[in-house]
Amino acid sequence: MYNCALLKFKDIASHDGHLSSIEEKIDVPFKIKRVYYITGVGQEAERGFHAHKKLQQVLICLNGSIKIRIKNPIEEETVQLNNPATGLYIGPLVWHEMFDFTKESVLLVVASEHYAEEDYLRDYNHYLNESKPFFG
Amino acid sequence: MYNCALLKFKDIASHDGHLSSIEEKIDVPFKIKRVYYITGVGQEAERGFHAHKKLQQVLICLNGSIKIRIKNPIEEETVQLNNPATGLYIGPLVWHEMFDFTKESVLLVVASEHYAEEDYLRDYNHYLNESKPFFG
Repeated sequence: MYNCALLKFKDIASHDGHLSSIEEKIDVPFKIKRVYYITGVGQEAERGFHAHKKLQQVLICLNGSIKIRIKNPIEEETVQLNNPATGLYIGPLVWHEMFDFTKESVLLVVASEHYAEEDYLRDYNHYLNESKPFFG
Repeated sequence: MYNCALLKFKDIASHDGHLSSIEEKIDVPFKIKRVYYITGVGQEAERGFHAHKKLQQVLICLNGSIKIRIKNPIEEETVQLNNPATGLYIGPLVWHEMFDFTKESVLLVVASEHYAEEDYLRDYNHYLNESKPFFG
């Protein structure tokens, strides 16, 4: 799907657990300026509901499972994340919504830019107008 | 303790859960080149048992709780991490050991450098020799 991709990270597994590493410009296609994480989400809650003008992000579920609905004016897809060695790359102009967070689920996001409110498209109709040039 | 500090991150809490953000050079005192995370650790397992020559890291427990033993030739301390809005900064020449991982615990580490095996001090006696100049 446009500006989206599933990434696989190396899973270094032993009897002492699992370790995955994300190196900037190697495991993700950008320099990491920020990470953020979402925890303690109730099972009925939904988050996201926005797109970004420039930000590139990779979403990784570190515990439990989380569903991500990604869409643009012509495509829609739902991805379930439940493996710390799998990341969902989301580039610019992808509308995304997160839901079905299981108990104790943890969502880690690795981001290409510092937080900037002006980079958000939070209104779906405004998003459709902004993204129209890219989707004919 | 030498080259260690507890950092507090903003906890953006709502009925939809908690979000904390770590911006490089703002919330941590370095540029983020790599993140890694440890999951699925059994309760009897211990990890770490090394120090670094140059690497700076911040350890955050995103679910459950984890204990970190930090030491140098003259000090020793144990820190329990159990709050996603608290990070443990560990700079160079701090020996560290992780243990008492609870079920479904998640340890996130934000790191200042790419992985480099030559930066590790994995033998405790070698570590004591290398760090002697810093601790008289």
